[in-house]
Amino acid sequence: MSESQSPLLEVRGFSWWATNAGIKDKSLDFGVIAASRPCSAAALFTRNNFPAAPVILGRERLRSGRLQAVVVNSKNANAASGERGLADARRTAQVLGEALGIDPALVLPSSTGVIGVNLPMDKIEAACRGAPQGLASTPEAIDQFARAIMTTDTRRKAVSVKVGAATLTGVAKGAGMIEPNMATMLAFLVTDAEIPAPSLQAALSSATERSFNRITIDGDTSTNDTALVMASGLAGKVSESAFEGALLEVCQHLAKAIVEDGEGATKLIELTVSEAPSTEAALAIAKSIVNSPLVKTAIYGADPNWGRFVMAIGKVFAHPVPLEKLVIRFGDGEQALAIRAGGQAADVLERIRAYLKNPVLHIEVSLGQGRARETVWGCDLTEGYIKENAYYTS
Amino acid sequence: MSESQSPLLEVRGFSWWATNAGIKDKSLDFGVIAASRPCSAAALFTRNNFPAAPVILGRERLRSGRLQAVVVNSKNANAASGERGLADARRTAQVLGEALGIDPALVLPSSTGVIGVNLPMDKIEAACRGAPQGLASTPEAIDQFARAIMTTDTRRKAVSVKVGAATLTGVAKGAGMIEPNMATMLAFLVTDAEIPAPSLQAALSSATERSFNRITIDGDTSTNDTALVMASGLAGKVSESAFEGALLEVCQHLAKAIVEDGEGATKLIELTVSEAPSTEAALAIAKSIVNSPLVKTAIYGADPNWGRFVMAIGKVFAHPVPLEKLVIRFGDGEQALAIRAGGQAADVLERIRAYLKNPVLHIEVSLGQGRARETVWGCDLTEGYIKENAYYTS
Repeated sequence: MSESQSPLLEVRGFSWWATNAGIKDKSLDFGVIAASRPCSAAALFTRNNFPAAPVILGRERLRSGRLQAVVVNSKNANAASGERGLADARRTAQVLGEALGIDPALVLPSSTGVIGVNLPMDKIEAACRGAPQGLASTPEAIDQFARAIMTTDTRRKAVSVKVGAATLTGVAKGAGMIEPNMATMLAFLVTDAEIPAPSLQAALSSATERSFNRITIDGDTSTNDTALVMASGLAGKVSESAFEGALLEVCQHLAKAIVEDGEGATKLIELTVSEAPSTEAALAIAKSIVNSPLVKTAIYGADPNWGRFVMAIGKVFAHPVPLEKLVIRFGDGEQALAIRAGGQAADVLERIRAYLKNPVLHIEVSLGQGRARETVWGCDLTEGYIKENAYYTS
Repeated sequence: MSESQSPLLEVRGFSWWATNAGIKDKSLDFGVIAASRPCSAAALFTRNNFPAAPVILGRERLRSGRLQAVVVNSKNANAASGERGLADARRTAQVLGEALGIDPALVLPSSTGVIGVNLPMDKIEAACRGAPQGLASTPEAIDQFARAIMTTDTRRKAVSVKVGAATLTGVAKGAGMIEPNMATMLAFLVTDAEIPAPSLQAALSSATERSFNRITIDGDTSTNDTALVMASGLAGKVSESAFEGALLEVCQHLAKAIVEDGEGATKLIELTVSEAPSTEAALAIAKSIVNSPLVKTAIYGADPNWGRFVMAIGKVFAHPVPLEKLVIRFGDGEQALAIRAGGQAADVLERIRAYLKNPVLHIEVSLGQGRARETVWGCDLTEGYIKENAYYTS
């Protein structure tokens, strides 16, 4: 589970910066993405009923379908922070806009970190004023920005792909408080393709549905989740379907990178529920399995305890499944090891035990009820998750 | 969190027995409760869509409202065990009935343990045939029975109360795969009060709703959960409301004992959601909080990270709450330490940190929206849960 090996690519019209604003310690905690001109933009935000201040402001600003800069801090979520929190978010955008000489209404603030503490605005404002000197379009600058938005992440998450003459580069963060409802983390994508905001929004919604909304680490939905894409247009028009394909590729890459880096995780679980009566049933059952602490700990221990899958499928009360048709397959294609209720050869269980020691696991649960087929991604549950979250200083 | 100090009491008409049938190792794994005559009986079973074989049979047998014996094994759930599993459950009841000279249709089998493995029927049948020699009505026999049904439990769970001239004694097991939907564990209650089956069923449903259905350890719902009460009638009639009160007391005692003994748990969390717009909203929000891995790990680490409560309340999308009215209280009555969104004095957080080191925690979340008030019980999430479940041999 290493950082992506493919090189990060510059995107015409965008520059990046990261610094230490001193919010908590000496590590990178502040980043800016700035465009050379107003971009078309689209975003999706958390469904948590207590959205953070920057999410409230972001929803308002995205109505215009236009943005020129993003200013992000880690170490503080600016959530449950009251009227002052909202004023702080507005002020951050204002100061950055003035520093860069752009319309502050085209600046989106974003925050991640502890909930319920107000931002140290003197430090934030000072950092904003440093942006003009620091911004650069290089891959190194993108890399530094991706590191600045990390919290409990152990690896920076970023990827670039080409779409015709255009480039699409995305960065993301997320390692805990991750559950598949809306874009449950921060992800910032930029492209120099020319795409109007409504098309961008439609493409982002569709890609998010099949990527960020399909991952889970702990079933907890953050107050700050944001997925954003900005298009500068400097590379001209590209094929719409090619762009949608590239956007899905980047979103899935980043989504899987988030789960691989799940707090304490040692294994990535790619789980497909097939032969389901409906998409809704397939997703409900897939999430029940991949969120079950008993399934997650069994996979951590490489224990072929398939009875826990049966339990997790059976606790989706709304979608009963005929047990006699249920098949659970571990592994890919011809090599897959199949389990059916009612007794297995011991050697199959031993081979599944060996398979479960791999860092990336493909598991398919066939319900024998219909034709819907959906895939989700999760991770195992380990002592590392407990340590991270019991002692993560509030 | 020690075993109950109050003495266990004999109940007229009932005898108990426990032994090692050799299902997995040398520990107690087999128990019987037998009545001297047919009893009125009531039960509730798991809502999991894959009920275990003894649950399928139990539902059928409880239709008559009459039972005379219960035969329970641990170490094997007889779940996802197909036609053979159902035949094994019937055969177990048959052999015990014949051994005791009672109608096999009045015998309820019950199982708990690993899912997906068939019962070793030679050992089960041999154990059944030993019951007549072993049965006794003493507190020691009740204690041994309570130990025989344990799986990952670290303590036996049993309690007795008096109701007029009658006695009510209950035993239970459960430490993992526990989520508040139906009676999510095994609980067997017996009384010598005279109560017809329909009244017994109504009282059990009501008590379960306010006890076993209000606990959660890991959000996983077992395939085998059963709560059963049998009344021999040998003490004659008692006040119906007194009996209902005693039944609730016993069920709540056993429910809390299960949560206190949650796998790896070090703290019992008693969480009340008050000023909710409806019972449904209160329960949905309470369960979201008490099941959140981030809340559970923060409590384990005695971290006053109340932002995680905010997150867990906000992810109940169906019941939005006004953040400005939200109050979270740690502790009881006058001593409670209150938190409101929008900044707290540092010393309050330090005092909450100290409070969170207690083994039993009382937490109240007031929504400021209405008059509904509901209490649930949960526990913290620790490395112990991971170890228990990653390496629990399947």
